[in-house]
Amino acid sequence: MQVITTIKDMNAFSKATKAEGKNIGFAPTMGALHKGHISLIGNSVEQNDVTVVSIFVNPTQFGPTEDFNKYPKDHKGDMKKLSNLDVTAVFLPDVAEIYPKGFSTFVYVGGIGCILCGASRPDHFNGVATIVTKLFNIVMPDRAYFGQKDYQQTVVIKKIVRELAMNIDIVVCPIVREDDGLAMSSRNAYLSDEERNAALILNKALEYGKGLMLSGREEKANHIKEKMGAFIKAESLVTIEYVEIVGPVYLENIKEVKTPAVILLAAKVGTTRLIDNMIVE
Amino acid sequence: MQVITTIKDMNAFSKATKAEGKNIGFAPTMGALHKGHISLIGNSVEQNDVTVVSIFVNPTQFGPTEDFNKYPKDHKGDMKKLSNLDVTAVFLPDVAEIYPKGFSTFVYVGGIGCILCGASRPDHFNGVATIVTKLFNIVMPDRAYFGQKDYQQTVVIKKIVRELAMNIDIVVCPIVREDDGLAMSSRNAYLSDEERNAALILNKALEYGKGLMLSGREEKANHIKEKMGAFIKAESLVTIEYVEIVGPVYLENIKEVKTPAVILLAAKVGTTRLIDNMIVE
Repeated sequence: MQVITTIKDMNAFSKATKAEGKNIGFAPTMGALHKGHISLIGNSVEQNDVTVVSIFVNPTQFGPTEDFNKYPKDHKGDMKKLSNLDVTAVFLPDVAEIYPKGFSTFVYVGGIGCILCGASRPDHFNGVATIVTKLFNIVMPDRAYFGQKDYQQTVVIKKIVRELAMNIDIVVCPIVREDDGLAMSSRNAYLSDEERNAALILNKALEYGKGLMLSGREEKANHIKEKMGAFIKAESLVTIEYVEIVGPVYLENIKEVKTPAVILLAAKVGTTRLIDNMIVE
Repeated sequence: MQVITTIKDMNAFSKATKAEGKNIGFAPTMGALHKGHISLIGNSVEQNDVTVVSIFVNPTQFGPTEDFNKYPKDHKGDMKKLSNLDVTAVFLPDVAEIYPKGFSTFVYVGGIGCILCGASRPDHFNGVATIVTKLFNIVMPDRAYFGQKDYQQTVVIKKIVRELAMNIDIVVCPIVREDDGLAMSSRNAYLSDEERNAALILNKALEYGKGLMLSGREEKANHIKEKMGAFIKAESLVTIEYVEIVGPVYLENIKEVKTPAVILLAAKVGTTRLIDNMIVE
């Protein structure tokens, strides 16, 4: 497994790989790797000749009051996990390599980048779009792997790939959950035992909402969102940011229950912001 | 010469060309081709296996009160000119092909995108950056050719290519001038005979400024700009928008005369906005 830290070397690696007629799968991550990441990488290894993983905690997707400085880091653990997989190269640039002095080119995403998580985290998806575009140009993957856990992110990335005509297939892999249902997230490391326990309400609420949608007894999405909201509020450590039922491609709000749809939610558990979602079809 | 109108076909052409081990030179244009464009294309033909020319009047780089709707069009003349050159493919998408309904992904350029022409034409360079990024992804050129006449544009494009790590060499070709010194521009077609004659003052002012810079008699860039301004004001049909002396890479204002530098100017001749520049070294 090659460890590469400069854009120049990473790009040279990818060009050489392509010149050999091999295709490249790419899993961009912010490190603190968990089983969700491992599943992305496993899919990439299975579907491509060469797999590249990047680890880069991207400052431009964090707001000024968010957790950029304390975002979980586990370099040693990450490298150990990656070395047990069939990863060909790990790209580990530092911030100055990606954003040198004077950097001011950004990919801006209107529309679906400004709602839901984009409403409470202004510029978050612009930061995501910018780093993903730049990493794609450096790594030149044929396929790139993202987790369904960040559902809106996958929609935003598909949008920029489509609208800027990037030559990359976006592969979305299912959410990986702990045995008790909590969606895997690097931010779960922030939770106390009590908060960790309270956070289980999120997956349960999604299952509850999905059940209501499929029951045929509820016609109005608003009723389901209200019931889910009341269900979550029983857990005093959890503060809902949003619960929405949307179309799977454009994330438009659904009024009358129909499928396929996605239930999306964001909530604070203590001071930790978590997101989760469930596809209903 | 193949004429291609869809993104899918253009991209397939480029992929097939690359698969044959051939490299691609690309000259993006807005049509109404003149000798400036022809020189870009000539350079591309000389330096690459395959040359692609695009003709697309890009709405996102025009302001709401600008000349998008009346921008010169000469489809028949353009196709005739191109067929006399060694162009392999012409990409001729319509607006809906490039900007389908709901399109909202833009490449934003801060810093040098916001000064000079960017100050009087807000969003102009964002529109340029967006279309160039998209065309680059579609055409996948090894080299792309731009005219020095749009000096700030070449600096902006080099910046986005560098900052987003695009794998493309940007080749800037010298300004092509009419025999009497007027810089070739599709917008020259707007000029009346009287305005056409008045516009000659712009190149003369640049030559005058260059002479002053190289004379060793002027130390302050401001003095030279003032003298050039007074020189141009003698022509009553011409209204100066800016005359600036800047560094060639970052376009920073120069106070003490030094070389290399670039004298940039923009002016209205009648109602037609023209730009011109001269490198001093």
